[in-house]
Amino acid sequence: MAKKTTRKTLTKKVAKKALTRKPGKKPPAKGLDRTKRDERTNQAIEKLAAAVVAAAMAERDPEFNVPTRAASNTVWDESSGILRMGDAAQTRQLFNLGQARKFMQTLIHGQGIRELIDADKTLSLRGMFYKGLHTIQGTKEKTFGEQTESDGILEDLEVTLGSLREELHVFADVRGSLTGNITFVDTGDEIDARRMGSGGYSIPSIVEPDVIQFKKCEADFVLHVEKGTVWRRFNEDRFWEKHNCILTHGSGQPPRGVRRLLRRFNEELGLPILCLLDCDPWGHYIYSVIKQGSISLAFESERLAIPEAKFLGIRAMDYERYDLSDDVQIALNERDINRAKQIKSYPWFEKNKQWQREIDKMLKNGFKMEVESLITKDISYVTETYVPERLAEQDWLG
Amino acid sequence: MAKKTTRKTLTKKVAKKALTRKPGKKPPAKGLDRTKRDERTNQAIEKLAAAVVAAAMAERDPEFNVPTRAASNTVWDESSGILRMGDAAQTRQLFNLGQARKFMQTLIHGQGIRELIDADKTLSLRGMFYKGLHTIQGTKEKTFGEQTESDGILEDLEVTLGSLREELHVFADVRGSLTGNITFVDTGDEIDARRMGSGGYSIPSIVEPDVIQFKKCEADFVLHVEKGTVWRRFNEDRFWEKHNCILTHGSGQPPRGVRRLLRRFNEELGLPILCLLDCDPWGHYIYSVIKQGSISLAFESERLAIPEAKFLGIRAMDYERYDLSDDVQIALNERDINRAKQIKSYPWFEKNKQWQREIDKMLKNGFKMEVESLITKDISYVTETYVPERLAEQDWLG
Repeated sequence: MAKKTTRKTLTKKVAKKALTRKPGKKPPAKGLDRTKRDERTNQAIEKLAAAVVAAAMAERDPEFNVPTRAASNTVWDESSGILRMGDAAQTRQLFNLGQARKFMQTLIHGQGIRELIDADKTLSLRGMFYKGLHTIQGTKEKTFGEQTESDGILEDLEVTLGSLREELHVFADVRGSLTGNITFVDTGDEIDARRMGSGGYSIPSIVEPDVIQFKKCEADFVLHVEKGTVWRRFNEDRFWEKHNCILTHGSGQPPRGVRRLLRRFNEELGLPILCLLDCDPWGHYIYSVIKQGSISLAFESERLAIPEAKFLGIRAMDYERYDLSDDVQIALNERDINRAKQIKSYPWFEKNKQWQREIDKMLKNGFKMEVESLITKDISYVTETYVPERLAEQDWLG
Repeated sequence: MAKKTTRKTLTKKVAKKALTRKPGKKPPAKGLDRTKRDERTNQAIEKLAAAVVAAAMAERDPEFNVPTRAASNTVWDESSGILRMGDAAQTRQLFNLGQARKFMQTLIHGQGIRELIDADKTLSLRGMFYKGLHTIQGTKEKTFGEQTESDGILEDLEVTLGSLREELHVFADVRGSLTGNITFVDTGDEIDARRMGSGGYSIPSIVEPDVIQFKKCEADFVLHVEKGTVWRRFNEDRFWEKHNCILTHGSGQPPRGVRRLLRRFNEELGLPILCLLDCDPWGHYIYSVIKQGSISLAFESERLAIPEAKFLGIRAMDYERYDLSDDVQIALNERDINRAKQIKSYPWFEKNKQWQREIDKMLKNGFKMEVESLITKDISYVTETYVPERLAEQDWLG
């Protein structure tokens, strides 16, 4: 049985221990305001277009380079603790039968983004597909076959222009809510996250500094939980008030807006990001993406990854540590086992003895456990005992 | 081409035309406060338990009746315009090998709900599964095999006790956001939905009157859109401000919290609910569930369905009416066609000539169209032209 804890809060002083930022590291970026950000993006698009025009005028074949978005071109940068893109790039030429279509699509979306920036509007990925969609004059050929083709081109543009999707005025899915000891301004509206009722504030897709400006924040840390249902338990028990924190969830794998906001909390407000996720390969993968970035979109890690994030639980040892009944065991199937082994060999986990032990222990257990499994102890065991004990003992995985 | 509209707003007077409430109908229910609601649920649980105890004491076989949750026991009530449960019920006996397990499970969850009510807490469906899960003493038998078994028992309890899931302190998924000209109180916090930034207020799962109390509302109607991405377009263009409305979305098929809140807006504030959904069988089905209720959970229609809801678009005729390019066409596949025919034969659509024509027209077109397809005209065509024209012309399907 775990010992009873008396301290309820992770104080600012203790919270700092969850921060591993090296001394001398550059001060937190404050981000650009919208005007400067848009100007920068516009210039990048113009540069791309100008090179094409210049080539055409000089009777050379128009072409541009697109950095390769593939696992083969993803590099684990140990010193910064994030995934980065390598230097590989592909040339995209107009007068190349295999490349002409993508060449055209890239320019169409570049043009579309310019229009969005000029109109100061945003569109979804689906919206961009429709925006770029038309039948090429004099043919029956459509500019885009289906949305996936359009999505890929937008990712190409991100890496080519060196701009996050949000800077291209393109937004992603919205999932995830927030409540806690912070006030911020969203598009001119002051949001007091202490007074958001049972519903909470919907975290939008675009949370750049020109959209969201942080004001008063007393919180000592951020508790990020995996699911909305768990978030509701913490909010109902007013955990954020008792433990002076910000409470977020991302409905599973957190969407970009949630990841970017967590990153800004960490970088600009110096708040530790503590994650409460399931003890299964999916929970570990979510943590990996929050911390190091995603392999398929390594380019974005520089502004989305949070190398300082911590994994608070659920831990494989909790089965014994908390004397849980075997009701909580969900057997690992073959797919889980393969996935766990794969995650175990990620370079950032491979060199981390704690994580090697954690995954080994889960494999040895032969079962997964969900955060909700603590309900078998008591409805509020997770908010009143489990997480307070982790905080008091400064017990987390790095 | 559609004619240009000058009027921008659906005034209160005009909005009333979207309300078809018959005179003399009972005044809108104000709902019970939490204490009364919990008392009522507790009494129903006690009644169920008392009957079991009384039977046992009298040496009769303990049993109770559970209304049958099946399409065969669903009745279309034309006068009220909603789906209702019929009178069929199943007896559940303890001393019946085929029923003993469900008998036990029902009592376990009844007990669990009493505990939730006493503790004034709520749990998710997953949480209830864990709460009720244990190994039966002296056996290796678990109380519940998997969550679906537990979910079914909770639905049984809803219909047996005559209580909505929310009244059993069990919450569902949370999806969907809100912004607009209304102030309300959620769990003691005043929410000014006019100042919710780009993110909006997350609509919680439980929105009963003891959780959410409406305060100042200037809005003339509610515009409910299908997707978060479309909602963002309307919020970014501040449609709710220009047209004096409340703006909601439900991330596809709206979850119960969103449906119940829309119903309360309609019933208690007298606001028309206007739905902007895709022109496809899925959009039509979403509308059908909002308006008449879901076939599988007919019991809940009485407090979730909104017979007065209106379908504002997208309409099959919009392809010609708005001179859209063929880029917006998404071919109906065989599944779509079968689904469309099935929906067309729902009794509430079958007797509605407008809907018969609408579905026939879509089938004749041979293609679906999404709300986002209007982006091919202009980024804000839907907020600046399409919806304002529908409102000005009072053009919607009932």
